[in-house]
Amino acid sequence: MRPLAISMGDPAGIGPEIIAKAWSAREAHSLPPFVAVGDARAVARVWQGPIARIGDLGEVAGAFAEALPVLTVEDAGEIEPGAPDADGARCALHSLELAVGLTRSGAAGALVTGPVSKAQLYGVGFTHPGQTEFVAERCGVTATNAVMMLAGPGLRVVPITTHIPLDRVAALLTVDLIVAKARATARGLTRNFGIENPRLVFAGLNPHAGEGGAIGREEIDLIEPAIAILRDEGIDVLGPLAADTLFHARARAQYDAALCCYHDQALIPLKTLYFDEGVNITLGLPIVRTSPDHGTAFGLAGQNAAEPGAMIAAIAMAGEAAARRAACPGA
Amino acid sequence: MRPLAISMGDPAGIGPEIIAKAWSAREAHSLPPFVAVGDARAVARVWQGPIARIGDLGEVAGAFAEALPVLTVEDAGEIEPGAPDADGARCALHSLELAVGLTRSGAAGALVTGPVSKAQLYGVGFTHPGQTEFVAERCGVTATNAVMMLAGPGLRVVPITTHIPLDRVAALLTVDLIVAKARATARGLTRNFGIENPRLVFAGLNPHAGEGGAIGREEIDLIEPAIAILRDEGIDVLGPLAADTLFHARARAQYDAALCCYHDQALIPLKTLYFDEGVNITLGLPIVRTSPDHGTAFGLAGQNAAEPGAMIAAIAMAGEAAARRAACPGA
Repeated sequence: MRPLAISMGDPAGIGPEIIAKAWSAREAHSLPPFVAVGDARAVARVWQGPIARIGDLGEVAGAFAEALPVLTVEDAGEIEPGAPDADGARCALHSLELAVGLTRSGAAGALVTGPVSKAQLYGVGFTHPGQTEFVAERCGVTATNAVMMLAGPGLRVVPITTHIPLDRVAALLTVDLIVAKARATARGLTRNFGIENPRLVFAGLNPHAGEGGAIGREEIDLIEPAIAILRDEGIDVLGPLAADTLFHARARAQYDAALCCYHDQALIPLKTLYFDEGVNITLGLPIVRTSPDHGTAFGLAGQNAAEPGAMIAAIAMAGEAAARRAACPGA
Repeated sequence: MRPLAISMGDPAGIGPEIIAKAWSAREAHSLPPFVAVGDARAVARVWQGPIARIGDLGEVAGAFAEALPVLTVEDAGEIEPGAPDADGARCALHSLELAVGLTRSGAAGALVTGPVSKAQLYGVGFTHPGQTEFVAERCGVTATNAVMMLAGPGLRVVPITTHIPLDRVAALLTVDLIVAKARATARGLTRNFGIENPRLVFAGLNPHAGEGGAIGREEIDLIEPAIAILRDEGIDVLGPLAADTLFHARARAQYDAALCCYHDQALIPLKTLYFDEGVNITLGLPIVRTSPDHGTAFGLAGQNAAEPGAMIAAIAMAGEAAARRAACPGA
């Protein structure tokens, strides 16, 4: 299997530490070989384990058993855990760019992205809303067709709208957007998770899913027409259902992914249940891309206190999805 | 201790069954004496246990050990579980009215309300948004000062706005409303739960609590000024914090109640964690009022399939709150 490429994220955040800790846990979690892309000094600064500086992805397989392979992009300048700066942000951006390129070219089997600081990236000329949109663009996929799915051991959620003010959500929802996100979700569940006939459920936008129009009409005017289109295409869709009844254990057993109208509707249940193990996976791309669902945690960096659970889960999920795609390239 | 008054709710729903099952579980859960207010035939239709038809609340204490005391309001007409009608809705409304009156007068120690169907009630002339507003009005308390709190074993949440379309939430939030709800919450936690210095937390309205204004300004323009006022009054308040980070186990340990901007922001985490045991308690009233946090479940009625967990929790919470208030009447 081709190694996974992991962009290190901001060198002053917890990215380098959790990647190193994931390498230490490679056997316990049967993780596939991977290479960290970034400044090797950022890892050495926070971790005493063995590092193998490599120049080519062909070296990863041989090195991985004995050391954490690192492909150094460029000097991140002075690295101080917890104290991000422009040099570090530039290094994070170039790490991401290289890791995407390696995966697009086929040299790497999948992409895992470490946590970056958007505020820092904006300071060095980054113009995308986030890493997901950057990766999608590099893959030639529009933002509408790239889907952010958050996954924990017993729940997968897709926010149809993401980082926008709550009072703009209703205006941004359209039948076309809902259909596009659901299609990409269904196809992504098949390609990446091997689910042949994915069962989707829609959360209503309004309390009690609008109570038949008494508390808002988006369910009737937007979600129900979208569901009709999706069903015509043979996609198994339930809803719209009241969002507050969708996420307890019995409800979760009824579907493979829940499509939610806005960020917190999706992220609240996911993080309530799986705060330390949530994985962000982008569906709709020609490559596999996952990410731990947390930030740079600058306040924790350099203290050997970061939990690697989400990074380990992101690597495992990327490896499984890549293996599945390699086995069924036409799926 | 004075008995609790439990309005039976819609006689065609699961109310009668879960009240009877709660009576059966009275010893296992050390429930205080209570009386069901409604049509005794609705209970007999779905339950084979002993019923004591009483005419006065003074009879409850003597009857409770051997039979479920029922104070019959009026004939609910033909009762068919799962098939609500206008006679049943009228009976539910009169049960509620009588149970509130008994509690207001002091004959009952606290009020527990069984589930009603708003659609059915509207058909017989009910004009309040829900039972909470009806009870508040009967107690002479404005809707702004009556607070709906939802509570499970490890989480208490207060939705600042409730049954309104999502796209109206931002427009309805005001500093005054936020302050009023938080004040009533803090005082209610002391009076009903015995928490001397309650710790409140505010969820932000927007994703990531607005990211410093980048994703919406309600946190800066409304929630932060409200928090400043509350802190000046000596109330312990945290936030506004990103809503998706507030409800996992470690986060929940940091506060006694979370104030949420809208219905689903509060109800999603509560029902994700405690679907079968959520209790609705109204704070800010001169009486104690609780309710199981679920509906009439007409589809389940009459099949001996209804879970009484939430009703049992609502009775237990009402009993504890009433005892606490009786011990500290001035609190």
